[in-house]
Amino acid sequence: MLEKKLICTACGSTFSLRENLARCQKCREPLEIEEFISKNIDTEERSDIFKRYKSFFPFQSSCSGLSLGEGMTPLLSAPSFAEKYGVKEIFLKNETVNPTWSFKDRGTAASIHHAIELGFRRIGTVSTGNMAASVAAFGARAGLETTILVKGDIPSEKLNPVAIYNARLIKALGDYDRLYEESLRLGERYGIYFMNSDVPFRVEGSKTIAFEICEQTEFNVPDFVIIPTSAGGNIRGIEKGFREFYKSGLIPHIPTIVAAQAEGCAPIARAYEKNSLTIERFPNPHTVAHAIENPFPPSGNQVLRMLHRQRGVAVAVSEESIYESQLELAGMGLFVQPASAVSLAALKKLRQTGSISSEQRAACILTGSGLKYTAVFDAYNLNAEECLIDDLEKLLAVK
Amino acid sequence: MLEKKLICTACGSTFSLRENLARCQKCREPLEIEEFISKNIDTEERSDIFKRYKSFFPFQSSCSGLSLGEGMTPLLSAPSFAEKYGVKEIFLKNETVNPTWSFKDRGTAASIHHAIELGFRRIGTVSTGNMAASVAAFGARAGLETTILVKGDIPSEKLNPVAIYNARLIKALGDYDRLYEESLRLGERYGIYFMNSDVPFRVEGSKTIAFEICEQTEFNVPDFVIIPTSAGGNIRGIEKGFREFYKSGLIPHIPTIVAAQAEGCAPIARAYEKNSLTIERFPNPHTVAHAIENPFPPSGNQVLRMLHRQRGVAVAVSEESIYESQLELAGMGLFVQPASAVSLAALKKLRQTGSISSEQRAACILTGSGLKYTAVFDAYNLNAEECLIDDLEKLLAVK
Repeated sequence: MLEKKLICTACGSTFSLRENLARCQKCREPLEIEEFISKNIDTEERSDIFKRYKSFFPFQSSCSGLSLGEGMTPLLSAPSFAEKYGVKEIFLKNETVNPTWSFKDRGTAASIHHAIELGFRRIGTVSTGNMAASVAAFGARAGLETTILVKGDIPSEKLNPVAIYNARLIKALGDYDRLYEESLRLGERYGIYFMNSDVPFRVEGSKTIAFEICEQTEFNVPDFVIIPTSAGGNIRGIEKGFREFYKSGLIPHIPTIVAAQAEGCAPIARAYEKNSLTIERFPNPHTVAHAIENPFPPSGNQVLRMLHRQRGVAVAVSEESIYESQLELAGMGLFVQPASAVSLAALKKLRQTGSISSEQRAACILTGSGLKYTAVFDAYNLNAEECLIDDLEKLLAVK
Repeated sequence: MLEKKLICTACGSTFSLRENLARCQKCREPLEIEEFISKNIDTEERSDIFKRYKSFFPFQSSCSGLSLGEGMTPLLSAPSFAEKYGVKEIFLKNETVNPTWSFKDRGTAASIHHAIELGFRRIGTVSTGNMAASVAAFGARAGLETTILVKGDIPSEKLNPVAIYNARLIKALGDYDRLYEESLRLGERYGIYFMNSDVPFRVEGSKTIAFEICEQTEFNVPDFVIIPTSAGGNIRGIEKGFREFYKSGLIPHIPTIVAAQAEGCAPIARAYEKNSLTIERFPNPHTVAHAIENPFPPSGNQVLRMLHRQRGVAVAVSEESIYESQLELAGMGLFVQPASAVSLAALKKLRQTGSISSEQRAACILTGSGLKYTAVFDAYNLNAEECLIDDLEKLLAVK
């Protein structure tokens, strides 16, 4: 199955999966693995997504000792939100219950699987957040030498939840975009598989989100799927997942894919508004949705091409609506990080503008746990009443 | 099915499930719901544990809108640990991937289901940690009026992750044990279903952990199941789950149940050592395993009776071994809160003393996420190397 080809998303050049390539060797745009067409889902397999969807992956071995139980996350229907916003149904895909509490675990697991099949003993990534923790954890599980390159100015509260997994952590001082490219160059040179945000197998891992949504809706997929978008790897994977199931005849249509960004860092949404197929660096990025604050996303152009091809949408939402949506989600039981709330905020905006009609169904991807970014509490006026135990009765009786 | 009886675990008095009783009305010891005997597991049902194990619950309705996707957590085999400690197999049941990132969600969901069937519109709990967040989240999901009673001296970093779910929070100043009893009294008086740590339906919820372990080992259950133990509700539920599957003929034996405590707060382990069936208040409790720091557990006596009946074990572990085990677990990819690491620490101790042989298999319950207690980072010397991007090559080449 490693005979499947890697195809450049821009120029169409093809490469072998037996090499660890992150970008097209000709035009430097992202690569994508050829589509998998199959009707075969191993519905008996409940614990390993890569076994369940085996025929949609190019792996030769099962590598089950690598899994931390990633994927198989709940898809919740939120009737109270559907009623409030006047749409037919709202689904919430809760990726916060992955092993390191974000969607990144799917792509990490897929990439490590590939790395091991190619014989790598060293892996790494460039990240200061969800992906860093994910790669550190799965690298530990697989017993690989794991290097995490982080921004030079990373605060200790972001460093600690990565460092705890005992990977090698290096604070690299300098331009962050250069770090991404430099890691790929050094990885090639020294035999380190850098599984950065939009490498082909990370995209493949993310497609299992789409597969699960298909199964969880009994193949009656929603009209819209809304994805907080940063580097572009996750949205590309989710779109590819629906595309493969559609071409396999498993679902009747591909949902409209929505790239949701924060107004404070919206390079993809801004290019989309201008009908451009090329992103520009977003100046002075600033948003509470740190996990998607990427001013120059490496898969940005490919996300624009994909949205254009699929009649998808890109939308940017205000800081205020992100905070509001985070509280709304917590108010129905799901505490997510601000970046995740961007998907609900985008849904509300698309409903207001009429892009989503009252007869339509939409799914929001909730990408990571609220416990990952507790600094946000400072923005809220969270408080408690106070009394002596002897006075408790008065408080409970009156309410 | 609400015709099932509530039975006092000490005096055998019986009560109706149509009342919301937390304790025996005669002797004040904990109540337990009559055993369910069935061979019926709905293996087609993958999203709702209360539907999957429907015939082991007394519910009349399906109440599926209450679920946040609790349960169905991974059971990982850890061959590196098994080799290191010289046992046949070590399983890790990862409860950190529940909707509020602890095992509490199972018992909360079961209790809310019961509350709704009895017509309650108000619920509550007494907790400053995992259970508080869980009840606040599920109360929000169910649209119930939810009151969380917390200790008067709760720090804001523990309050915030509960407050975000928008429940009513009351800091109650005074003796914490009295608060437990007072909440039950006021709940009865004002129609508030207080789902405290060892109420019957919380115990019922926890038994799904055992059910899942049975299924995940293909009914070839481990010899030992090791559970961090505080109030006693979780261990009672897990034991009941194995007992019900055993009496139903689904498993060949009940695993040896191990109550794992921290030496700094070990009322159950201390009584067990003395061959006593009655706990005494543990003086000056102090442990990094805050989530199980209960000096006078309300189900303590019943846990002792259960261990006596089942030839179970209670063991206390040192602070040092808790820290060490937390790092070991993170070093294989699972970042758990210190209380969870107590189960691995207990396994190592039982192996050292020969209580677990090299031919035996053991499962550790990992109760909650490490992100819940980040203060522990201060205890570790977590650090990163630092360099300019230009110097990165030197670092990556030499290693």
